[in-house]
Amino acid sequence: MSDFTSLAAFQALLAAMPGPDATAIAAAADRNGQLTKPPGALGRLEEIAQWVAGWQGTAQPRTDRAQICIFAGNHGVAARGVSAFPAEVTAQMVLNFVHGGAAINQLAKTFGAKMTVEALDLETPTADFTEGPAMSEAEVVAALQAGWNAVDATANLLVVGEMGIGNTTAAAAIATALYGGDWVGRGTGVDDAGLARKGAVVAAGLAANPVARGDGLQALRCLGGREIAAMAGAMARARALRIPLILDGFIACAAAACLAAAVPGSIDHTIAGHLSAEGAHGRLLGQLGKEPLLSLGLRLGEGSGAALAIAVVRAACACQSGMATFAEAGVAAG
Amino acid sequence: MSDFTSLAAFQALLAAMPGPDATAIAAAADRNGQLTKPPGALGRLEEIAQWVAGWQGTAQPRTDRAQICIFAGNHGVAARGVSAFPAEVTAQMVLNFVHGGAAINQLAKTFGAKMTVEALDLETPTADFTEGPAMSEAEVVAALQAGWNAVDATANLLVVGEMGIGNTTAAAAIATALYGGDWVGRGTGVDDAGLARKGAVVAAGLAANPVARGDGLQALRCLGGREIAAMAGAMARARALRIPLILDGFIACAAAACLAAAVPGSIDHTIAGHLSAEGAHGRLLGQLGKEPLLSLGLRLGEGSGAALAIAVVRAACACQSGMATFAEAGVAAG
Repeated sequence: MSDFTSLAAFQALLAAMPGPDATAIAAAADRNGQLTKPPGALGRLEEIAQWVAGWQGTAQPRTDRAQICIFAGNHGVAARGVSAFPAEVTAQMVLNFVHGGAAINQLAKTFGAKMTVEALDLETPTADFTEGPAMSEAEVVAALQAGWNAVDATANLLVVGEMGIGNTTAAAAIATALYGGDWVGRGTGVDDAGLARKGAVVAAGLAANPVARGDGLQALRCLGGREIAAMAGAMARARALRIPLILDGFIACAAAACLAAAVPGSIDHTIAGHLSAEGAHGRLLGQLGKEPLLSLGLRLGEGSGAALAIAVVRAACACQSGMATFAEAGVAAG
Repeated sequence: MSDFTSLAAFQALLAAMPGPDATAIAAAADRNGQLTKPPGALGRLEEIAQWVAGWQGTAQPRTDRAQICIFAGNHGVAARGVSAFPAEVTAQMVLNFVHGGAAINQLAKTFGAKMTVEALDLETPTADFTEGPAMSEAEVVAALQAGWNAVDATANLLVVGEMGIGNTTAAAAIATALYGGDWVGRGTGVDDAGLARKGAVVAAGLAANPVARGDGLQALRCLGGREIAAMAGAMARARALRIPLILDGFIACAAAACLAAAVPGSIDHTIAGHLSAEGAHGRLLGQLGKEPLLSLGLRLGEGSGAALAIAVVRAACACQSGMATFAEAGVAAG
C-alpha cells in the first residue's frame, strides 16, 4: 500500500491532517470541574487528560491500547567514529528487542503496551551525508511509508522510538539545518575526541547538503536516517488517526522537528515524554514548544523516556474517566 | 497487638531499625554495569533500582506487591476556617475511597497496587492545638500503632497517603516547630483571608505547645493529627520490614519529618515521589534531603503523587531485574 509517492505528496497529506475535537475538550473540562478533588489539584494531569480527550474525541479518554513502535536504521556517518559503539550494535540490539532483553521491552511489559520492532535495511546504511544526501527521495519516502504502516489503527496512545548507531549525529545535523547553532552532544557517551569528530561531521554534512537548510523534509532526506524518517511517518499516521503520541528524546524530537518545519502545527497531537540528558534535547523541546513530563536523566533512546511517560498519561486519563463527581459521591464541593 | 506503649518506646524502636543491605547494593550495581545499555543511560532509574535493591536485599528487586495505605483524621483546628472545605468532607471522601471514586482509587487500579483505607476516629477530631496539645500521649501512640498495623508485611513497595480537612495547617505547624520560619500555604485552595487565618492558627499553636519545638514526636503529638501519626507509624513499620517507601506531598513529608527529627536516618528507606504545588513542599523536601522524582503540579494528597511515582520505581526495577546482559544478548559492549 502506498499512501504517498513523493515528499511533495507527503507534505500535502500532512497539511490536510485533522485537528482535535473542540467539543470533546470542552466536555472533558466540564467533567474535570465536577470530579471529587479541589479545582486544579491534579496539576498537569488535568491538562493532559483534556488534551487526550480532544484527540480521541471523548470526555472520557482511554489509554488501554498503547503501542510502542521501534525503528532501527544504520547510518553511513557511523563509519566516521561518531559513536562509542560499533555499527554492528544496531542489528544486535534489534535481536535483543526481539528476544525481550532491552530496557524498552521491560518498560513495554511494565505498562502493558504492545511493542513492535522494524529494522529498516540494516545491511544497507544510508549514504555518508558528509558527501551528499543520506537518502534519495525514493528511499526516504519508503522509510516514511514503513513508519506510516507500522501504526496499529486501533491504538489509543502511541510511542515511537529508535535504535541506530550514529543517529545522535544525524539528529544534530537535522537540528542544525532547521535552526542553526550547535546541537552536537555526547550521545551514548563519546569522549572529547569523538565529540569533536561529531561536530566536524555535522558541519561537513551541512556544507554538502545546502538544500536541507530550513526545509523539514529535505533535512530528513539529506541528513536523517531510515529510522528517523520512519518515526516521522509513524507520527504523521498517528495524526491522521488522531492518536495522541508521546515524544521521546533527541532523535525522536528531530524527526518531529522535520514535520513541524514542513507543516506548522503538524505535531500538535504530540506531548514531550521526558527531558533527556542528551545536552541539546531541552533546547530542541523549546523549539518545538513542548514542556517535558519527566526529567529523570535518561539518554537511551529506544522510546524509553516516552514509554515511562505512558504511566503519566494513563494516570491522567484514568482519573479523568474513572473518578466520581461530587454529585455521584455525595461530597460537598467546598 | 501493641508494639510500643509510649512515645519513648516508639523512639527506642525507631533507633534500632535495620539499614540497607550493602552486599545487595554492590551486586545490583555490578549487574547494572552489564545490562544492554550505555553506562548511565537510564539516568535516575539506575540509582532507584539500586536503592530498592538495598532495602529488599537482592540485586533483582521486585515491585509487584505495591501497597497504598490511606489514613483519614479530623482536626480541631478545622473549626477555625483554615480550609476551603467543611470538616464533613473528610468522612465523605473516606466513603468515596471505599466506593472507588477518588483519584487515588484510579491510580491504585492503574498501577495494580493494593489500596487500604483507615478512618481514625473521625467523629472525635483532635483537640484544637491553639489551646494545647492536639493529642494525648495515649492518642498519638494509638494512631502510630494503627499506621504500624496497616502495613502488609508481604508488600514490596509502600505509599502512605492521607485525607483530613485542615491538615495542611497541622503539617505547617509541625514544620514550623521543627525548622522555624513560615510553612503556611494555600492547601486545597484557601483565599487570602483563609491564608491569614492559617498563619495565625499556626502561630497560636506554636505558642500553646512550646514542648513541640525541635522535638519530632512531641511536634507530632501536639500539632499533628491522627492520620499524620498513622502515616508516621506506617513509615516506621515499612522501615522495620525493609520495605522501600515513596513519600507523597507536604503532609506525608511532615509525618516523615517527625521521624527524621526523632531519629536521624530513620527515613532512609524513603524516596520523594513528587514535588507538590503546595508552596512549602519543596523546602520541606530540602530539609529531608530528598530530590523528587516527579514535578507535575499535583496538590491533592491521598498519596496521589507518590502513587504516580510507583510507575517510575517499578520501571526502574523492571529494567534492573529483567534486562539482558551484554553477554546474554550477544551485544558488543562498546
